[in-house]
Amino acid sequence: MRWVRFSKDNTTSYGSLNGDAITEISGEPWGKATPTGRTLALSEVKLEVPVIPRTFYCAGINYAAHIREMAHKRGVEPVFPEKADIGYRANNALIAHNENVVIPRDAPPKVNYEGELVVIIGKQVKHLTEANAMSCVFGYTIGNDVSERTWQRGDRTFWRGKNTDTFKPMGPWIETDVDLDAMETVVSVNGKEDLRFKTNDMIFGIAHYIAAMTQYLTLYPGDVIWMGTDGTSPDLVDGDVVEVELTGIGVLRNPFVREKA
Amino acid sequence: MRWVRFSKDNTTSYGSLNGDAITEISGEPWGKATPTGRTLALSEVKLEVPVIPRTFYCAGINYAAHIREMAHKRGVEPVFPEKADIGYRANNALIAHNENVVIPRDAPPKVNYEGELVVIIGKQVKHLTEANAMSCVFGYTIGNDVSERTWQRGDRTFWRGKNTDTFKPMGPWIETDVDLDAMETVVSVNGKEDLRFKTNDMIFGIAHYIAAMTQYLTLYPGDVIWMGTDGTSPDLVDGDVVEVELTGIGVLRNPFVREKA
Repeated sequence: MRWVRFSKDNTTSYGSLNGDAITEISGEPWGKATPTGRTLALSEVKLEVPVIPRTFYCAGINYAAHIREMAHKRGVEPVFPEKADIGYRANNALIAHNENVVIPRDAPPKVNYEGELVVIIGKQVKHLTEANAMSCVFGYTIGNDVSERTWQRGDRTFWRGKNTDTFKPMGPWIETDVDLDAMETVVSVNGKEDLRFKTNDMIFGIAHYIAAMTQYLTLYPGDVIWMGTDGTSPDLVDGDVVEVELTGIGVLRNPFVREKA
Repeated sequence: MRWVRFSKDNTTSYGSLNGDAITEISGEPWGKATPTGRTLALSEVKLEVPVIPRTFYCAGINYAAHIREMAHKRGVEPVFPEKADIGYRANNALIAHNENVVIPRDAPPKVNYEGELVVIIGKQVKHLTEANAMSCVFGYTIGNDVSERTWQRGDRTFWRGKNTDTFKPMGPWIETDVDLDAMETVVSVNGKEDLRFKTNDMIFGIAHYIAAMTQYLTLYPGDVIWMGTDGTSPDLVDGDVVEVELTGIGVLRNPFVREKA
């Protein structure tokens, strides 16, 4: 099942999506989802970020080739994570499908994409095990963890390098039924395929992360966990369009524009 | 003016506080605050965390003595920040005044307090300067950035060391009228004063941080910025009670309990 969060006539709602038809609900799809009786066409609404999370979790480094290739670029030895230490991103940076990633006018040129699977939590949970961890997952969407590498390496935190306004595209919608082992992440730049990898070839899988996290923290409905990326990106410039496809979910498309001086 | 967020009869509201009397409003104090007509006594309500922020910012290291003393404890040279790179904490960890900080049963023993001034944003702003930065500040509250130092140093992120459930007490209320230069932070453990410092003796002040942050990110009403702490804390154990006073705001009190095996 597919859920969209959308705006129409100055109100924002959730709805289930069948083909091009949205059936609006009141509330959130992981809560008491009551149909409002209104149906709309996908083409007549604006898609919004699928959820503003209470806490925005991000695995960061979680694929082997990404770690090897990033280390090679920097001329250092690759360091693989020893355990599932979750990281964070910031809500200010979220934008929806088709919205512009705006590169600040003074940003260095190493602006990269990172195509990621996003897990959306549907229940309040703590102390899960790997065996029952997936029971709290409501569905999945797509994230692009846009990163400026000079700021990422040079600043004390990721505040500019990863959390500049518009650097966290997420969408286009939530898909509840996926085949993780069959899924591929395919990133295209200006319509040409640039990267392809098996989405579930993670160092630490979703159930492992959730079990580790919930030993110490409570997950809440609407929390998101971005699962990291494989491979590396070219440096993106003004006018580039990046599409992150996760097979079985959809395509997250965002133009990149550099802020004018 | 003083604002509380409180629960009574299964609903949570804001109200202004005069002495012991709460005048309830609908909405949030930085929005259209309309009195509901209900008044309550402070003693008959449960105080809640003053706000669940959209993004939870934290300066981290921002006082000279804290940096020198922490470096000395670790046997390394002190490193002072070169610029105002803001960090983050996580909403799952927030608890209110008088609620228990629960130390996980397997946590190492280096559990410390960090008494902090918390800035609460009241307006949506970007591109502020140091001259007009304070115009977006709605008020102030108190935070205790509880930290387990072994996890803080050993993990790849601060997920357990600083963001374990209950590790972020915030409250008791929001004060809009303060004299920052006169303010002192006074931390007591079990009723005995343990640390005292001038709250506004920061390496990078509030206006400097807000100007730097809003060059790249939008601040939203209800966002919080924890401004860091000075000095160092003893290792806290089961049964300790920590009170963080910020003169002119109030006292944030939280018992520490270790989870039973």
